[in-house]
Amino acid sequence: MKKEYLLTPGPTPLPPQVSLAMAQPIIHHRTPQFQEILKEASLGLKWVFQTANDVFIISSSGTGAMEAAVMNLLSYGDTALVVQGGKFGERWTEIAKAYGITPEIIDVEWGKSVAPEEIRKRLKANPQIKAVFTTLCETSTGVDNDIASIAKIVKETSAVLAVDAISGLGAVDIKTDAWGVDVVVAGSQKGLMLPPGLGFISVSPKAWKLVEASKSPRYYLDLRKAKKALDKNDTPFTSSITLIIALNEALKIMQKDGLEYIFKRHKAMAEATRAAMKALGLELFAPTAASDGVTAANVPAGIDGEKLVKTMRDTYGVTIAGGQDELKGKVFRIAHMGFIAESDIITGLACLEKVLTQMGYKFNLGAGVKAAEEVFLK
Amino acid sequence: MKKEYLLTPGPTPLPPQVSLAMAQPIIHHRTPQFQEILKEASLGLKWVFQTANDVFIISSSGTGAMEAAVMNLLSYGDTALVVQGGKFGERWTEIAKAYGITPEIIDVEWGKSVAPEEIRKRLKANPQIKAVFTTLCETSTGVDNDIASIAKIVKETSAVLAVDAISGLGAVDIKTDAWGVDVVVAGSQKGLMLPPGLGFISVSPKAWKLVEASKSPRYYLDLRKAKKALDKNDTPFTSSITLIIALNEALKIMQKDGLEYIFKRHKAMAEATRAAMKALGLELFAPTAASDGVTAANVPAGIDGEKLVKTMRDTYGVTIAGGQDELKGKVFRIAHMGFIAESDIITGLACLEKVLTQMGYKFNLGAGVKAAEEVFLK
Repeated sequence: MKKEYLLTPGPTPLPPQVSLAMAQPIIHHRTPQFQEILKEASLGLKWVFQTANDVFIISSSGTGAMEAAVMNLLSYGDTALVVQGGKFGERWTEIAKAYGITPEIIDVEWGKSVAPEEIRKRLKANPQIKAVFTTLCETSTGVDNDIASIAKIVKETSAVLAVDAISGLGAVDIKTDAWGVDVVVAGSQKGLMLPPGLGFISVSPKAWKLVEASKSPRYYLDLRKAKKALDKNDTPFTSSITLIIALNEALKIMQKDGLEYIFKRHKAMAEATRAAMKALGLELFAPTAASDGVTAANVPAGIDGEKLVKTMRDTYGVTIAGGQDELKGKVFRIAHMGFIAESDIITGLACLEKVLTQMGYKFNLGAGVKAAEEVFLK
Repeated sequence: MKKEYLLTPGPTPLPPQVSLAMAQPIIHHRTPQFQEILKEASLGLKWVFQTANDVFIISSSGTGAMEAAVMNLLSYGDTALVVQGGKFGERWTEIAKAYGITPEIIDVEWGKSVAPEEIRKRLKANPQIKAVFTTLCETSTGVDNDIASIAKIVKETSAVLAVDAISGLGAVDIKTDAWGVDVVVAGSQKGLMLPPGLGFISVSPKAWKLVEASKSPRYYLDLRKAKKALDKNDTPFTSSITLIIALNEALKIMQKDGLEYIFKRHKAMAEATRAAMKALGLELFAPTAASDGVTAANVPAGIDGEKLVKTMRDTYGVTIAGGQDELKGKVFRIAHMGFIAESDIITGLACLEKVLTQMGYKFNLGAGVKAAEEVFLK
């Protein structure tokens, strides 16, 4: 017997009623029955995106939705400002390059958030920049960027702002309309408590003008086709029926809880996790801009980071994430987004303490769990 | 109480064990546990594709995989030969045009299959043609094309052959390697008995040279990325975990049955359905090239085709498909692919007889069901 716990920044665990919704007999997507579900889900998406803009559903991973943003906003030869500060910021650059778009790169040190003033400076220096691409929660480093301030700056220019909120949406606040974020990209397998397989993208009227003007070759990810279909309460190609039914279930749960409560819950789990790291004598990888969706901590000297993650998972059934790319073996990441509760955080921390002890790291056993309990009691 | 039956050419019903596999707690995609499943599924795909070529899994609808074929094989300015003879043949043309590829179109009358000799003639006349795009089962018209003969012709030229087998694979025989089909595209929600959301594409060594040479802008659907990942038993972007777990379950069921039995079963259901149409005095829409995956029949004079489909579905719970595009209201389509059994065909035919009677169409009640029973007894 082994109970499994998933504390990774995507996929995240699914509420049982969401899982069971997917096991229902499949229905056809071009029926009134499914159209009702799609309509409800579309309204729910607007609610969680905090927008009156259209939110398009794409059958793809989050990356497909990021590519949809790039190709639909820009054409070969255009210039974009890209904030890099981790693996997913770099992905914007890679996609832009694939489309012959010149990326002007703001190279933020991994573990830091971008200084919004740097974006103002770069936009001023180069009026050719048509779009700014950045990230809400940079999953690879556990950093949240200050999207509110960035949006305020970009709004004053002719450029549009596109935010990768794949990791973050539904866990960390992003006020699409109130802040004026033109394009928000999300994925299903993070704060939305679903399996991977759906991408989402909201588009403001300002950004829609670029969509209509873009000359990038596109078909499956063509948002003009998505818009035509959405206006008839449909998707342009066969919908991922089971995932959309699951989406609708998950959104119902979220709407019952309300966004204010959801963000408060995530903040508490993040604070508890950070307090635990401190109590265990572990350094946060991103102390100045730590995300409320995922906490990255430095692997302490003398400890094998990859073995730590592997032992927690394979021996004790607690899956956390290691570091990616240049952070491989150097950090571990505990996610607290989506269908993760206080109890999961406590379980994860206790398991971390157990394995760290076994690996010879010195600290007061129970100190991390106690620190988390103290936060949760507040 | 109403029992629901789905007799549509995608989505098709799911075996209960496939549905339940999706309701299991989600696991992380970058774990040995998932890699084991992905490996097994990849081998199963090679089996059902009847190929030693790589079969890539894409998180997209079938159209995404079709676009992957076009963009990865060809570049702006290239010429392709496209067989049109229905909605899905036309999709090849639309995608080619979106990428600045010149489509040379063979315009086959809807309801007919393409004459392979026409392909030979066109290839001879225009040596610029780099790829031939056609369809195994044209779902919109219920036509199967003679892929074996087409492949034989294309193989002798420098062009590659890409077949849309989205509708058909796992129901109708396509011997990828034995016939020499360079690229086979499939989708999850037809013969493979899965929900929509996965696309598949197999690529021969001859076609892979084009993939490496293509200059089309691409990222999410870039098969070079897919290949790099597959070689490490991975997917380039977050896998659609639940769908891949379901795929593995479905492939296990299919492998237990064996391809020979599967194709025989589909052929029997198709013959039974066609015999029933004849017994009911209904004309097949595609009498000379009727598919073993889906049967299209003309709506008899004086009967409202859309109302027929709607009544069967909304009143009696039997969902069949109407006509698409220019065939709207003119044909109805009964699918017999995937997890559909003799019992479903009998149920569907009885319901069709019931509603046709109610709508005033004259025939011997029970004649269609009887004709199907006779075929099944053979």
